[in-house]
Amino acid sequence: MANKKIIVIGGSSAGPKAAARARRLDQNAEITMFQKGPDLSMASCGFPYYVGGVFDERNKLLNTPTGVVRDPKFYWNAKGIKAVINTEITRIDRENKRVEYINHQTGESGQQEYDKLIIATGATPNMPPVPGINLEGITTLQSMQDADYLRNIRDEGKIKKAVVIGGGLIGIETLEALHLAGIELTLVELFPQLLSFLDWDMAKLIENYLKTKANVITQNGVAEFIGTNGKLEAVKLQNGTQIPCELAVVAIGVKPNIKLAREAGIEIGQLGGILVNQHMQTNDPDIYAAGDCCEIPNLITGKNVLAPYGDLANLEGRVAGENMIMGNTAKFPGTIQTGICKLFDYGAGITGLSEIKAKEAGFDFEVAVNASFDKPKFMGGQLLITKLIAEKNTGQLLGAQCLGPGEVSKQLAIWATAIKAKQTVEDIVCSDLPYAPPFSMAVDHSIATSHVMENKMRRFFKGINGPQLKEKLDNGDAMFILDTRGPDEYENMRLGIGETLIPVGMLRKRVEDLPQDKNTEIITYCQISLRGYEAAMFLQGLGYKNVKVLEGGVAAWPYPKEK
Amino acid sequence: MANKKIIVIGGSSAGPKAAARARRLDQNAEITMFQKGPDLSMASCGFPYYVGGVFDERNKLLNTPTGVVRDPKFYWNAKGIKAVINTEITRIDRENKRVEYINHQTGESGQQEYDKLIIATGATPNMPPVPGINLEGITTLQSMQDADYLRNIRDEGKIKKAVVIGGGLIGIETLEALHLAGIELTLVELFPQLLSFLDWDMAKLIENYLKTKANVITQNGVAEFIGTNGKLEAVKLQNGTQIPCELAVVAIGVKPNIKLAREAGIEIGQLGGILVNQHMQTNDPDIYAAGDCCEIPNLITGKNVLAPYGDLANLEGRVAGENMIMGNTAKFPGTIQTGICKLFDYGAGITGLSEIKAKEAGFDFEVAVNASFDKPKFMGGQLLITKLIAEKNTGQLLGAQCLGPGEVSKQLAIWATAIKAKQTVEDIVCSDLPYAPPFSMAVDHSIATSHVMENKMRRFFKGINGPQLKEKLDNGDAMFILDTRGPDEYENMRLGIGETLIPVGMLRKRVEDLPQDKNTEIITYCQISLRGYEAAMFLQGLGYKNVKVLEGGVAAWPYPKEK
Repeated sequence: MANKKIIVIGGSSAGPKAAARARRLDQNAEITMFQKGPDLSMASCGFPYYVGGVFDERNKLLNTPTGVVRDPKFYWNAKGIKAVINTEITRIDRENKRVEYINHQTGESGQQEYDKLIIATGATPNMPPVPGINLEGITTLQSMQDADYLRNIRDEGKIKKAVVIGGGLIGIETLEALHLAGIELTLVELFPQLLSFLDWDMAKLIENYLKTKANVITQNGVAEFIGTNGKLEAVKLQNGTQIPCELAVVAIGVKPNIKLAREAGIEIGQLGGILVNQHMQTNDPDIYAAGDCCEIPNLITGKNVLAPYGDLANLEGRVAGENMIMGNTAKFPGTIQTGICKLFDYGAGITGLSEIKAKEAGFDFEVAVNASFDKPKFMGGQLLITKLIAEKNTGQLLGAQCLGPGEVSKQLAIWATAIKAKQTVEDIVCSDLPYAPPFSMAVDHSIATSHVMENKMRRFFKGINGPQLKEKLDNGDAMFILDTRGPDEYENMRLGIGETLIPVGMLRKRVEDLPQDKNTEIITYCQISLRGYEAAMFLQGLGYKNVKVLEGGVAAWPYPKEK
Repeated sequence: MANKKIIVIGGSSAGPKAAARARRLDQNAEITMFQKGPDLSMASCGFPYYVGGVFDERNKLLNTPTGVVRDPKFYWNAKGIKAVINTEITRIDRENKRVEYINHQTGESGQQEYDKLIIATGATPNMPPVPGINLEGITTLQSMQDADYLRNIRDEGKIKKAVVIGGGLIGIETLEALHLAGIELTLVELFPQLLSFLDWDMAKLIENYLKTKANVITQNGVAEFIGTNGKLEAVKLQNGTQIPCELAVVAIGVKPNIKLAREAGIEIGQLGGILVNQHMQTNDPDIYAAGDCCEIPNLITGKNVLAPYGDLANLEGRVAGENMIMGNTAKFPGTIQTGICKLFDYGAGITGLSEIKAKEAGFDFEVAVNASFDKPKFMGGQLLITKLIAEKNTGQLLGAQCLGPGEVSKQLAIWATAIKAKQTVEDIVCSDLPYAPPFSMAVDHSIATSHVMENKMRRFFKGINGPQLKEKLDNGDAMFILDTRGPDEYENMRLGIGETLIPVGMLRKRVEDLPQDKNTEIITYCQISLRGYEAAMFLQGLGYKNVKVLEGGVAAWPYPKEK
């Protein structure tokens, strides 16, 4: 039998992974990987950290763990994969099972046959369709060339002011990178909140934090880039504001690169990505697709989504690579859209559905917010705030959002594993996690969060979140608001919403200071609402019928506070 | 109806948690918690870090997160729980449903009635039954008083040499603490390995690391403590060796405190712990038990175990506390015996079964060892080594051991969640974990480990581990051993077991340097055996029929290496 001919279109993440997996499973296959640009297997998620100076050696973005640059020579010598760079595939000829290519450096064109083909063409950054978009000083952070451009700006140190357009993952990572370069920054977001995969109340906590580092403008888009002599001088917003700047980085999402696929008659989904089955196979059984150019199912809703994440690209590529050789022995079941980013000393992320997405999907769900520490204070513990979503009748976990200076990544990894395993709140309540003081609290934050949710689902307490309480306050609802913290804490920072301070340790002695009417609505809280919960239980014991705990307490309050 | 009378015996972890949960669910219950010693809710897992000077304020071990000492006044004011300290329960009179107590400070004794009772009497450190055990200078690290004693030794700085007896979690944590205090240390372990919950090959890697910090002696017990004028001067081992020292800390495990329960006719299990059902209820329906004094089921084997961990004590106490009030509405299903410890710059731990335990339990299982980084190198990534155990036919995860300077705790949390959720290897292969370079590799170490296991279970490659290869070497088996690393790596450190160095990138050009006979047994490896795996696949493609990858490579090789 003739050796199998495999063609891989794309050399960034999904492509190289598919090629490597195919090679390992078939040493005789002829594997060719075409890459449009000059670089292969770039660690593109690492670009912001190179730009920000976390490390200085550019090649670290291109190297294997042992320090070998992943160039065509490496691919051939170490893996027996022919990697062709600077070469674009211009057509997939399905009838004759071949591709047509052109080398943009040499101008040389040609064609090559395949038995199996994988499309891993990635995605292209969206650009706002406004005047001035081609001025010098406007860039994205998508390619090695973008990274080189921004790193050079950092190293030169000439630019003083920059605008980042888009408050998503990449926008915020870029903001941090340029801030580390000593540049004064403004972040502009079209939507009413940053990090649109989070709920508003969680995103607002991030926004409040980011405002200590940069100017943040939400609900305002770019109307025009203004410049003279072809050089950027200001960004003009939709509300007329002009922000002087010498640099603008656009990070308003990406769209799948599907032109090649569409022209070849490969099916495209409603979201604009290539449609694949669970084997990452397109409607042409000899053509697979993987990475940012595809649509994949969300495992909770069952509906397709675009999930342009580097980790999924690798996993999808691995599945497609195996299937091209073995014939659909491997499956990629889908995503729960886990995402995380570092922003200065905070982490923030989500796995599964947000409250908004759970509502859109028609779930009947409960929400719980928990604020607590990742480790004991004596071990330098830091705050974590988690918002957990679970289905009401079944208790099945639907989503978790987590943020704070604590170990967000570990929390999300726990929830991601649990959600993908279709665990319920009850399953987590008695989790057996690795505990020692250098690593976690005796009751880990994730378990404590499940306890809050369990107590809420079993109606042991009623909760209220920041936006719900704010609405009541704005409506002028009569309430007794009880801050159960200590006087020192109160002096240091308070909500300033008409609250009464009674430290939880004084509550039993100051029953007379509570409302006479047992039907009065009472809101209790403390810094993280553990003492607030304790107080609520006590008040319910006294016969108060309408007690609510402000979930997450002062720590999770997204509105201005008094100092 | 009269208020419910709850008595809690024990004020460390399970007791206070049960009391607090009971209080929150019933504001009218009369809850009394008896504690034999003077302190309540001590963070006893934090003792080594206080002794080692990670923090200086003793009260941090006794405080709430907001800095209030958990004394009887706090328990009464904040929680309405009567905490009685320095008071021992001397008898449980089940017939009359009351306990008898004596206050060891005042000598006052009395009795008190209960409707529901919980026994949370904890465990007592084992002491070796050898001469000299009562000499001054011999201690455990179990109580606040022990912590004070050792902290004082640190602060005084007079003691120069100490011996830690027992290489388990607490022994190793104590070793680190005393090392930080500038004391020269010897660790003595009776068994052939440290950390007996790990398999030998993993424990050996820890031992090799610890030997850079302290003198480590295994397979040797204490025969005698030698001293003059009542003061310790040396530890004499079973092989006759004498180790001069002024301090010895004994950490050879604990045994459940069950005297009170046994005398009251409460059923005790074969392992010496109190028997409870899944509601943490003993054979007396009005008496519950929780924490280190109990036996609980291992969720994988179904058999009872002793699991004296602080996190489980809290969870068990919470369940018992609810059930005393609500009547068995809560369940504690059991443990997967997750454990972790920090040792200097390493973490090490396990969740689920080790290879030895899986064998004992009669499972037909596969083992895979993976070494890789927790984060990209450009973000300061550190090595992790994981040994994964999964059932052969079903792929069900049975256990994971992880160690290294990388983020061990997050890895174990992922595996613990997956194992408790009865996930299979296939479920983890396409995990959707939170990825960004500050937090993980694009393919997380846990996922990469599942890939190794999957490849092994599907017979894509054959693996061999350190001990298996060592046995072959000792037998003088004919093999071709192939180190696929670079010359620099080889010069720096090598196994020195007769290997041939052919860098993986040279392999395709140096086929003539390989054995002629395609039946020759070939062992391939590199630093972490990723290139070793690549090479194995290539050799199999050439027709070699007996190629094995040394799993975990040089990084996981537990024997001496050449430099």
